[in-house]
This record gives sequence, structure tokens and C-alpha cells, in this order.
Amino acid sequence: MAAKYQTTHEVAYYECDINQTMTFPAMLSVAIKASEEQSEELDRGAAVIGGYGLSWIITSYHILVTRLPKVGEQIQVVTQAKEYNKFFCYRYFWLLDDQGDQLVKIEAVFALMNPETRKVSSVPDEIVAPYGSVKIKRIKRYPKIEPITQGYSLPYRVRFYDIDSNQHVNNAIYFNWLLDVLGHDFLTKHLVQEVTIRFDREVAYGNLIDSHVQINEAQALETGEVRPLQTLHEIKIADVTYCEAVFTWQAR
Amino acid sequence: MAAKYQTTHEVAYYECDINQTMTFPAMLSVAIKASEEQSEELDRGAAVIGGYGLSWIITSYHILVTRLPKVGEQIQVVTQAKEYNKFFCYRYFWLLDDQGDQLVKIEAVFALMNPETRKVSSVPDEIVAPYGSVKIKRIKRYPKIEPITQGYSLPYRVRFYDIDSNQHVNNAIYFNWLLDVLGHDFLTKHLVQEVTIRFDREVAYGNLIDSHVQINEAQALETGEVRPLQTLHEIKIADVTYCEAVFTWQAR
Repeated sequence: MAAKYQTTHEVAYYECDINQTMTFPAMLSVAIKASEEQSEELDRGAAVIGGYGLSWIITSYHILVTRLPKVGEQIQVVTQAKEYNKFFCYRYFWLLDDQGDQLVKIEAVFALMNPETRKVSSVPDEIVAPYGSVKIKRIKRYPKIEPITQGYSLPYRVRFYDIDSNQHVNNAIYFNWLLDVLGHDFLTKHLVQEVTIRFDREVAYGNLIDSHVQINEAQALETGEVRPLQTLHEIKIADVTYCEAVFTWQAR
Repeated sequence: MAAKYQTTHEVAYYECDINQTMTFPAMLSVAIKASEEQSEELDRGAAVIGGYGLSWIITSYHILVTRLPKVGEQIQVVTQAKEYNKFFCYRYFWLLDDQGDQLVKIEAVFALMNPETRKVSSVPDEIVAPYGSVKIKRIKRYPKIEPITQGYSLPYRVRFYDIDSNQHVNNAIYFNWLLDVLGHDFLTKHLVQEVTIRFDREVAYGNLIDSHVQINEAQALETGEVRPLQTLHEIKIADVTYCEAVFTWQAR
């Protein structure tokens, strides 16, 4: 049984947008910090992983939002490196309110990469052992991300301060590019419910990326179900896709 | 004697750039949060100030850097609303290491504005009374910011996530625009020593700003002194200046 690691966090004003709720970059930063703390505690910090000639990358997130944390709220951040297979490690994060009720659940898929060759490595059992992760055979599948057929885009330059102390464009920064393109009106009139995001390639300092989006209004399906309002997202440089995402929303 | 307020902060990886030291936006966010906590404690939070039909704005910072806080470091954040005159309040912040030694000192100049009329108000004594600030006659002067005569610039669009839960472009965000234009090489080869920044006008969501910079190499003066490496900065929209700054640097 994989051990859980828990910490608390007070949501600061600068971690929130004008909706007074925590941004995705802030939530993910706080979550990843908790996982780094757990790794240090289990003697599996970046230096130890580096000793294997490897470093962690995140290939995707699947996020369920019950309610976004609010300015000033005291939240609990719980994480567990739950399962792994030959190439992927599945880590879960829960942001809970002070009653222990779930606000946000984040499933993150990690892989190990050789930073020199940029090749993904299989996961050595001894790296994962201290976490108590369960070895599984199957590869988990998350909701499909449909390609954009009718969208629009805005350009974003990768800035010096988009690179964090881990030497990479912080994964969390992608969320700013993905969402900013939706604009003020959309972002203040809708509440996010679910996110699936996949990171295909790494953008680098100085790159000029295009953030594409397609808005699919809520729609009654032939099955009688209603497909909620969805936005499809692609981060591209010229014709190459670096990141894809799908968000579902409800009216505020 | 103005009361000091003190809190502690552990520097997170996402608050640091690739130099492994804390960014200006992160330092200022942590500092302002401490001042907001003090204000709440003294019953002078945003709601109370709002009751006067006013809100705080920051018109300038003067920052002295002995050493920037490092990833993982436990710092003390101390603040004191030291002095005020008819229109300005002078608040000091000190970031200290765990031995109490000074890492960074920030002097911030606050003013009160009517958010409807956008007019600066004189400072009512009863707003400042609980802080124990000393009333002074004079207006403090900070180092002069020379205008740019030979510079270059890059454009930046004000994004949704540049606006924080206080409904404004976070002052701290200006530092990203000011510094990004210097580029990776400059920012990894130099250490900042001193900053003077003045906010003249407020930029708004959707604005396209130009961040101008002029690099003045270190220079022997006629007086026998050496003027250190300086960078002059202006944030402009067309010909109108919104923010000016001067940074002094030393080689790393």
C-alpha cells in the first residue's frame, strides 16, 4: 500500500485570479512541491534520481474539480505514488478543504527520462520501492483529446521567468497559455470541471508558441445525453504539436 | 514607534528562476502578503479601507539586495509601516536569513486612491494610526531614473493571469516584463544589487506594452568613482510611459 504524504497550504492572494480562486499553475506548483518533499523524505530526491542518470518528466494530468480553493483558504495537500508499470508512474494528488472534503483531484503520469539522450527509460523497481507503489501491467487511458478542426490562436513567447529552478518550462505555465486565449469574459463566466492534458514535446526558452483553442458548446447527443461545454487546446510551434488538452466547463 | 510584523516563508522551487534564487515577483508577493496580514490584524484590511472609498496603490519600490533567497531556504519576512506624510506611506520590508541577517531590503511607497475617480487621496490619520507610523513632513527621494536614450524593446501582452485576486495587474508582474527583455545570458551572468522602480500609470488587461531597456556598462567617472553596470527600463504603450526602473548589477 503506497504511503500518503500530507501537508497544508494557505492559499495566498497572488495564487488566485480575479475569480478569487486558485489558478492551475498555483495548484500544480503546490502539488508538485508536496511530491518533492515526499521524495526527499524517502531518499528519492532529484539528486538520487540524477545518480541513475535520469530525471522525472510529467507526460499528462487528469484533473477533476469539485470546487477551486479560495483566497485565504487553508487546504490540505495529499499525495500518493499509487501505481506504476514498465514506463509510467501514476501519482495522485488531492486538495482537500479543512473538513477533509475533496476540492480537486489530480492524477499525474510521470516517466523517467535520460536528460542527455532525451530518451524515456523503463522504471527501475528500486527507485519506486520506498513509495510502496503497486506494480500494474496495464497502461491507464484518459479521456480522448479530439484534434482541433475549427479554432483560433494567439502567439506566446517563452520567457526567462517561465523557466523555473528545475531548469525547465514549468508544466504549470502551459495552463496560462492554454487558458489566456479564452479571454476575460469566458474565464469569468465559466467554472472548470475536468481537465485532461498531455505533454508531447518540451518547449524551450525563446520559442514562440501558438495556443490554439476550439470552443464546443454544450450539445444534446443522439444517445439522449448532453455533452457539456468543452474547449479543445493545442500548443503548437508551426505544425508540430507540443501539448494537447481538453477542458469541460459549466456556466457560473 | 511603528510595530513590526514578522512571518516566515520557505522558498519553493517554483518561486525561483534557473539561478536557483527567488524571483522579484515571488519576493514582492511574499512581502505584500505579510503587509496584508498585518493590516488584517490591525483591522485595516482592504474591506476597512474600502469603507473609506479608497484602496492602496504602490507608487514605487527601492530595493537593496545583499543576497537573493535560495531554493528551500527558510526566510523571515519582516515589515513595518514606518512613516507617512500627507500623500505617501513608507513601508519597509526585510527578508532575513535564519540567522536574522539581511538578504533583501525593500522600501515601498504606498498611496491611497479612490478607485472610482482614480484620484489620489490624502492619508487620513485614523487609517494609519494602528500601525504606529510616524508622521513626517518631507517627501522621500529615491535615486533618479534616467530616461532611455539608446535602447531596444520587446512587446508583451497583458494576460488574464497577470491580473490577481486584487483585480489589478500585480505590481510584481512588471518585473517579468522589465527583466525578460535582458535575455538569458545577461540574467544568468549578473547579480542584481539595487533596484528603483516607479509606477506611473496602471496597465490593463489586454494592453500590449513595450518593455524598453538600455544597458549602461560600468564606467569610470571623472570624480574617480566607478559607476556600476546599470540597466534603464521603461514600460510604454506607444509614447506613454507606464513604469520606469533602474537596476544596478555586478558580474556573477
